[in-house]
Amino acid sequence: MLDFSRSDEWILGEDEFDPKFFSKVETCFNLGNGYLGLRSSSEEQYVGEQRDLIVAGTYNFFAEGETIELPNAADVTNIEFKFNGDRLDLNQGEIIKYDRHINLKTGLLTRTITWKSKSGDEYDLNFERIVSLKRLHTIAFNISIVPKQKTHIEITTGINGRMSNLGCQHFTYGTPRFFDNKYMVYCPQTIQSNITFAIGAVHNFKLNDKPFEVGGNINIKRRYMFFNYSCDVEANDTFNMEKICNVYTDRDKDIEGIDLKDLQLHCLEGLKNDEATGFAKLYEESANEWKTTVWDRAPIEIDGPSKDLFAVRFAQYHLRLMAPAHDNRMNIGAKGITGEGYKGHVFWDSEIFLLPYYIFNMPEIAKSLEEYRYFILPSAHKKASENGFEGAQYPWETAWRDDGEVTSKYQGTDIVTGELIKIWTGIIEIHITADVAFGVWSYYKCTNDQEFMDNKGYEIIFDTAKFWVNRLELEKDGMYHINDVVGPDEYKEHVDDNSYTNYLAKWNIEKALEYAHLIKNEKKDIYKRLNKQLGLNKLIKRWEEAIPKIFLQVPNEKGILPQDDTYLTLKEIDLDKYKKQPFVGGIYKDYNQDQITKIQVSKQADVMVLFYLLEDKFDKSVKVNSFNYYEPHCLHDSSLSLCTHSMLAADIGKHEMAYDLFEKACLIDLDNNNPNSSYSGIHAASCGGIWQCAIQGFGGLRMLGGKLRISPQLPNKWNSLKYSLNWQGQLIKVEVTKDKLVLTKEKNDNPITLEVWEKEYKLEDTLTIEK
Amino acid sequence: MLDFSRSDEWILGEDEFDPKFFSKVETCFNLGNGYLGLRSSSEEQYVGEQRDLIVAGTYNFFAEGETIELPNAADVTNIEFKFNGDRLDLNQGEIIKYDRHINLKTGLLTRTITWKSKSGDEYDLNFERIVSLKRLHTIAFNISIVPKQKTHIEITTGINGRMSNLGCQHFTYGTPRFFDNKYMVYCPQTIQSNITFAIGAVHNFKLNDKPFEVGGNINIKRRYMFFNYSCDVEANDTFNMEKICNVYTDRDKDIEGIDLKDLQLHCLEGLKNDEATGFAKLYEESANEWKTTVWDRAPIEIDGPSKDLFAVRFAQYHLRLMAPAHDNRMNIGAKGITGEGYKGHVFWDSEIFLLPYYIFNMPEIAKSLEEYRYFILPSAHKKASENGFEGAQYPWETAWRDDGEVTSKYQGTDIVTGELIKIWTGIIEIHITADVAFGVWSYYKCTNDQEFMDNKGYEIIFDTAKFWVNRLELEKDGMYHINDVVGPDEYKEHVDDNSYTNYLAKWNIEKALEYAHLIKNEKKDIYKRLNKQLGLNKLIKRWEEAIPKIFLQVPNEKGILPQDDTYLTLKEIDLDKYKKQPFVGGIYKDYNQDQITKIQVSKQADVMVLFYLLEDKFDKSVKVNSFNYYEPHCLHDSSLSLCTHSMLAADIGKHEMAYDLFEKACLIDLDNNNPNSSYSGIHAASCGGIWQCAIQGFGGLRMLGGKLRISPQLPNKWNSLKYSLNWQGQLIKVEVTKDKLVLTKEKNDNPITLEVWEKEYKLEDTLTIEK
Repeated sequence: MLDFSRSDEWILGEDEFDPKFFSKVETCFNLGNGYLGLRSSSEEQYVGEQRDLIVAGTYNFFAEGETIELPNAADVTNIEFKFNGDRLDLNQGEIIKYDRHINLKTGLLTRTITWKSKSGDEYDLNFERIVSLKRLHTIAFNISIVPKQKTHIEITTGINGRMSNLGCQHFTYGTPRFFDNKYMVYCPQTIQSNITFAIGAVHNFKLNDKPFEVGGNINIKRRYMFFNYSCDVEANDTFNMEKICNVYTDRDKDIEGIDLKDLQLHCLEGLKNDEATGFAKLYEESANEWKTTVWDRAPIEIDGPSKDLFAVRFAQYHLRLMAPAHDNRMNIGAKGITGEGYKGHVFWDSEIFLLPYYIFNMPEIAKSLEEYRYFILPSAHKKASENGFEGAQYPWETAWRDDGEVTSKYQGTDIVTGELIKIWTGIIEIHITADVAFGVWSYYKCTNDQEFMDNKGYEIIFDTAKFWVNRLELEKDGMYHINDVVGPDEYKEHVDDNSYTNYLAKWNIEKALEYAHLIKNEKKDIYKRLNKQLGLNKLIKRWEEAIPKIFLQVPNEKGILPQDDTYLTLKEIDLDKYKKQPFVGGIYKDYNQDQITKIQVSKQADVMVLFYLLEDKFDKSVKVNSFNYYEPHCLHDSSLSLCTHSMLAADIGKHEMAYDLFEKACLIDLDNNNPNSSYSGIHAASCGGIWQCAIQGFGGLRMLGGKLRISPQLPNKWNSLKYSLNWQGQLIKVEVTKDKLVLTKEKNDNPITLEVWEKEYKLEDTLTIEK
Repeated sequence: MLDFSRSDEWILGEDEFDPKFFSKVETCFNLGNGYLGLRSSSEEQYVGEQRDLIVAGTYNFFAEGETIELPNAADVTNIEFKFNGDRLDLNQGEIIKYDRHINLKTGLLTRTITWKSKSGDEYDLNFERIVSLKRLHTIAFNISIVPKQKTHIEITTGINGRMSNLGCQHFTYGTPRFFDNKYMVYCPQTIQSNITFAIGAVHNFKLNDKPFEVGGNINIKRRYMFFNYSCDVEANDTFNMEKICNVYTDRDKDIEGIDLKDLQLHCLEGLKNDEATGFAKLYEESANEWKTTVWDRAPIEIDGPSKDLFAVRFAQYHLRLMAPAHDNRMNIGAKGITGEGYKGHVFWDSEIFLLPYYIFNMPEIAKSLEEYRYFILPSAHKKASENGFEGAQYPWETAWRDDGEVTSKYQGTDIVTGELIKIWTGIIEIHITADVAFGVWSYYKCTNDQEFMDNKGYEIIFDTAKFWVNRLELEKDGMYHINDVVGPDEYKEHVDDNSYTNYLAKWNIEKALEYAHLIKNEKKDIYKRLNKQLGLNKLIKRWEEAIPKIFLQVPNEKGILPQDDTYLTLKEIDLDKYKKQPFVGGIYKDYNQDQITKIQVSKQADVMVLFYLLEDKFDKSVKVNSFNYYEPHCLHDSSLSLCTHSMLAADIGKHEMAYDLFEKACLIDLDNNNPNSSYSGIHAASCGGIWQCAIQGFGGLRMLGGKLRISPQLPNKWNSLKYSLNWQGQLIKVEVTKDKLVLTKEKNDNPITLEVWEKEYKLEDTLTIEK
């Protein structure tokens, strides 16, 4: 089980060896650096483990029936030990001492065990592991063994290319190669995208802190290269092994297209370099990188229940390791690079739930993520044209640049027909196109990155608006409708005029029109280029004609904004059972999708996300009425739901509810009883969501209509909150207590205008505002 | 460990639960029926297990670097149990009673356990499993659980399509389908050969022998469809589950090319049929099939050490389950269908080490195997033409009809260069072409199957001889040589004039010439057809010209037949270390292939196989001298070696040595300390070899120059041997004692002429011959 007893020391622990929690621990303790993600399975193998090494951006397609996904690369973590003939297996013998934990501050994974084998022999074992945040290609292990008796140690260690994504094999047999009878480099290639990996490993040993030669046999089996080492040590000797691994691919930006021989040598050189550095220095270097680039840069302090701050730090830890800061051809998958769930695909989660964290804390990462959206325009054009539309229709799920729509077509079983369930999101969940435009605009407004906007941002906003105006359907009422969609609430398929979709589409077109007029006057070169490319002159007319006629839902007589044309008229059932279930999707065990579509039940926030994004378009009373209505109908069966509801609850003054929902959101991955983060990986958007609740909900931080707003509303249990934020190139420090807000920034010629608690202020260097 | 204490009851047991022997047991206890082979892994999963379900003939190619192989199909054997929350895991808790065994007579696999969980609860468990020999598509499980206390039982059971061949995935995602909320049918397809499989399963329960409804949840995950069943039972209740599975493919002869929907329904129908029959009757039916088609048909009795007869029965058991008697488009892979080793490929093993058993015992299976060789003529033409030759050059390793040469190109690591070792057998081990012709001739002579010969046999013998005459190299000495080959002894690469190859090639050409003349006179239609097809008129001249000039090694001054041009001149080293090693290939840890080629060391019988096949071409003294010379230089690093040496030792009167080698040959799979049969499967040829030692060696049974010879020479430890044999359509019963031989057959108009102990006899109905 996860153990939070050392959360003050930034430590997430595991209290005892229990196979039931393997997957949970592997996910939550995941190591990574944005380039690679490594699940924290134990060195020795167990039934029920889920080992994964995922390199960001290395998508591959296997065969019919599968979808493009991030492949599970060759494993370097499995190391098998035999002590006096007994295989190290904690299910056997006796565990005298056990501790496993991840230190979020330093990224060090540690496992400390005293184990008595079935034969009665006893061993002190210590395992340390890092994925370097400084050297993106480096994985390092430091393992020490202190036997209580004379011991014959046997170790099988190497590189195992037999891994797969639940049986789906993305790699060729590969080229294994030993150098100097010591360094091993394995180079398999993805079978469709033809990305060659180089995975290297080298081992070094010490006895009682002195270099120690251990005899080893080289072995190559199918997809598996390894050493069998063995040696004899005396009682109470300290035997130590460092395993240093390196991972590269010929898709890496700095060596893109390198040939196999050079890739092997490149990997060999990396190995030798890291080997010379040694584990201790590699660790120190990486821990320092965590300090300077994460914790010092985005410091958050909460005077309140320590679990709250710990959950925020846990989120920040994962937000860093999921972010491909090194490469703007990539974005963040729904499970980051912590597991095979959602196949490494990029969803709207990226814009709506993740982007705000990076924009306000690490704007260069936000920029990289937005550049990805620009680079995948070919996929958006492909999707639009396949559907008979013009412009850029962003695929619901994306992978590599021109992979197009990569959403799976089927999933699960229909309890009525016994057949697979068709997935409609990839076909009709179209709001993502506006979400992307919204992300571009948010990034631009918060950072003032005009260069990005000139070269990429305007184009995305125009191109998406071009799609939208094409997608609108003129009906007999003289209005433009958007029919047959899935909105954010995926329990409702084939609905008409989903509020979220229509409002955002209209916003997208309006924003395009505004910027088209602006650049026509102020940036004539850009206008000329984009007019030639997209036909802006014509588009402006179409946008002007369409905008006033786009149908938008309006609040009903009870002041509730309808989610779509029919939601409020559907059958009601008792949802209590499903709301109480500790797992998601339970309703599918009683109803099939057709039936669920006809019931007033939501998977997740829908209208609430609209209120969060376009806050200023709705009266508070509409928000209150709608919240009171929709929340009881929502099963929060998506990790995107609780955080949105928490922020909205905070916005409308339901402080206790906001805190209650925040607490639940914090447990999406950290709750021992929530099985849903297990094999498939962390809930990336939920990590963003935890930060959103804390900083955007309680901390009151928003970009609204292009302006900064900070209107904190601390929960009762918090006495104070400190955080910092980047706004258009300036760093602002925020200290919130129950009764006041203190803002500070470096004094310069650019004061910042912002709104606090519904009044406007100008921040020169420091500002103290009483509530 | 394997336990032979019940070998008198035909039972091969395992004495205790020990993960070290998982693979050994899975292989030796393998179930099958020639259509499918199923490794005998435990129901619950363990680290170190190797689960395989292999359907004969379903070859597929994955991707570059791999070779065509028999894929490991979706698994139905993994069933997970939880009792009162404790996962059934024999590594945990306490094993109070343990027995696992295979009954060779009936093909029933049984596991009986009393297990105390960590919580202290106790359970009596009994698992029975069969693969029906009567219904080729049926796998059935009968599992009973008697808890000593009230117990909540949870069972996860279904079909798991995540299996792979050591990471190599041959199947698409597949189509899963439930019927009636009860029957599951999973249809994946091989990715290159496009064979669609249908694997079905259904579960039924009883409590205290009465039908019992157990609640189950249907689940489909990626490549995995299953039920979660759970129920509560009282102390001492007998809870029982039958799992019935069916396996079909659209390559099956009777439903070839069936479409997916029909295949699903075909599987469903099979399931319902077997379900109605029930485990008890399915078992009875299958056991009866073993009795009537194997044990009553090929009865062998030995009055001697019981382990000897047991080893022969073990061989017979496996010889039946590896034989695709149902389909003449298939042959027998080097590991049968018991594991992934040698990838299901067909080698010369089939002709030289397996065929004799079938010819003398089940000639219809022998015929089917020979027909395979006819069907793969396209592969032999392809190989010849790729090498610039005419005629039929049989590939060293074959798979499906026109797959061509399928030998892997690389394997293992060169200890000197660190690179993969190139495999030369597929390129230059050419003797298989003559072996195939020899097999055809043997089948014909023993069975007198003129129809086969007319339609297929002559053609193979001519077509192979056409290759040989083309392959010969005329040298300055005016003789035809065959240079740069690998002979049967694969430790010698790139040798010239390997005796075995040259003698067999010459035999092949001579036999072709003989038959060409024969049919030219006696079967003019056939001659006409084959002349048109192969150019017999021209070939006859070429054969006549070549035969006298084919170079053959002759015995040297010491009366030893040289294995090739240089063997007897090579460096000698002390081989003692390698001869004593309990594993094969140990010499590769000290020498690389180039070095081994230059040492007087053999992997396996070479000249000895020549003596066995062409016995009458060599003087006894040459055999004795050669045996005495080569055996000490042979590491027996091939399972084809010990049996050949044993037969030869018997032939030349070295009775003790013959028995000693037989004993060793019996242990190739049955020795607990021989790890080599583990994951990769049984040594098919060695099973044939055990029978060969017993019946062809000690029993003295041979077809020599087309005639029957029975010259028994019992080892000292045997008082008598009884066996039967088929000769040209008649069944002969043989009883051998130390001092006499009794032969009986049904009296009819066809007496059989045969040679016994160097004298000719005529067998009318019975014949008693004193030694």
